[in-house]
Amino acid sequence: MIGEISVDVPGQGLHEITARVAELVQRSGIREGLCTVFLQHTSASLLIQENADPAARHDLECWLNRLVAENDPLYTHTQEGPDDMPSHIKAALTAVSLAIPVRDGRLALGTWQGIYLWEHRRQRGRRRCVVHIGT
Amino acid sequence: MIGEISVDVPGQGLHEITARVAELVQRSGIREGLCTVFLQHTSASLLIQENADPAARHDLECWLNRLVAENDPLYTHTQEGPDDMPSHIKAALTAVSLAIPVRDGRLALGTWQGIYLWEHRRQRGRRRCVVHIGT
Amino acid sequence: MIGEISVDVPGQGLHEITARVAELVQRSGIREGLCTVFLQHTSASLLIQENADPAARHDLECWLNRLVAENDPLYTHTQEGPDDMPSHIKAALTAVSLAIPVRDGRLALGTWQGIYLWEHRRQRGRRRCVVHIGT
Repeated sequence: MIGEISVDVPGQGLHEITARVAELVQRSGIREGLCTVFLQHTSASLLIQENADPAARHDLECWLNRLVAENDPLYTHTQEGPDDMPSHIKAALTAVSLAIPVRDGRLALGTWQGIYLWEHRRQRGRRRCVVHIGT
Repeated sequence: MIGEISVDVPGQGLHEITARVAELVQRSGIREGLCTVFLQHTSASLLIQENADPAARHDLECWLNRLVAENDPLYTHTQEGPDDMPSHIKAALTAVSLAIPVRDGRLALGTWQGIYLWEHRRQRGRRRCVVHIGT
Repeated sequence: MIGEISVDVPGQGLHEITARVAELVQRSGIREGLCTVFLQHTSASLLIQENADPAARHDLECWLNRLVAENDPLYTHTQEGPDDMPSHIKAALTAVSLAIPVRDGRLALGTWQGIYLWEHRRQRGRRRCVVHIGT
C-alpha cells in the first residue's frame, strides 16, 4: 500500500507526524510488515527523536543551526535566500527516508520515539511524504 | 518475518551486531529479500562501518565526541546528565534504521562492512533492535 | 528483484545515478513497491539532493570537506592516506542505504530530487550498489 502525507509547516522546526503515519498503517490493515516514509524534498528531513521533553528537540535545532550557519562565505548557491544552502546541508546530514517495522498492526517505535518532519527553511510551506507499507 | 535483537552495552562505543543480524536472516529462510534493522532508542544509533582496523572506529568516535561536546552552554535539556543531549544530537546525525538486501540467503554486505550498534550514553544498559526480513 | 549498479568514479565528488536506478525499477516491472539502494562501501555514501543548480552540490561538498578535515591530529588510522579517515567519518554522517517508494512503475522522487553516489576518496575507483525492488 502506498499513501501520502502532506504537512503544512509554519517555518523552521520539528513537526510531529507520528499520528499521521500510524493512521496510514492502521488503514493498510497490515499486521506484520515494514513502513517506509520518504520525503520528497531536499531542504527538509525526517527524524526519529525523543517525544518527551521538548527541550531536547529545541537544543537539537539550536545546535544544528550553529553548526550549519547562514551567510557562510563558503556558499556560492545563495540566490534562494540565506537559509537555502544551510537547508540542503542539514538535509544531507540527516535522513530523507525512514523504515519502521510494523508489529501487531502498529509501528514498532520505542517508548520515547516520535517521527518528525524537520523543516529547515524559514518560510511557510507544504511538504509531502510518500509512505509505503508492505509485508 | 520480524525478530528482535537485544544488546547489553557496557557504555559508550561501537558494538558489532553483524552476526546477530545474520543469524536472523538465516533463520528466516529467505533467499532473496530485504533486511531492515530498526533501533528503538533516541540516544544510540545504527552504523555500517569498516570491520577491519579498529583504529578507524576509534577515530570516528573521538571525532564525533569532539564535534558534539558535553557541557555545551547551548544545552537546556541537562537533567539527564552531561552525556544525554550530545547523545540525542549524535543519534540525529547518524542512522536509526538500516536496510540491507539479502542475496543467496545472506546479507549483501561489502567485504569490509560490519553492522554496529553505536551507544552514545556512558552508562551500562540494554538496547533493543527490531529486525524485519521480507521478500 | 535484486540488481546491481557498478559506478566508475574518477575521484571525490557527487556522481548522479538516478537514471541507473530508474532503469532497474523499469526492468523489474513492479508498479507499486519499494526500491532500496544499498552501497557496499564504508568510504562513500548515497545521497538524495537537489539535481538543479550544481552550485548547491558544490557548496555541500566544500562544507563537508571543511567540517571533516584531512590531516586532523586526532586521527590514528592514517596508513591508507590522508583522505581515508575523513572518508569514513563522512560516510558515517550520511547514508549507506536509501529506500524510495515506487509508484505507477516509477521512483516516487520529488521534482528536484536526484540520487547520487558520493565518493569521499580522492582516487579513481569502482563502487558497487545492490538494489532491491519489492512490493
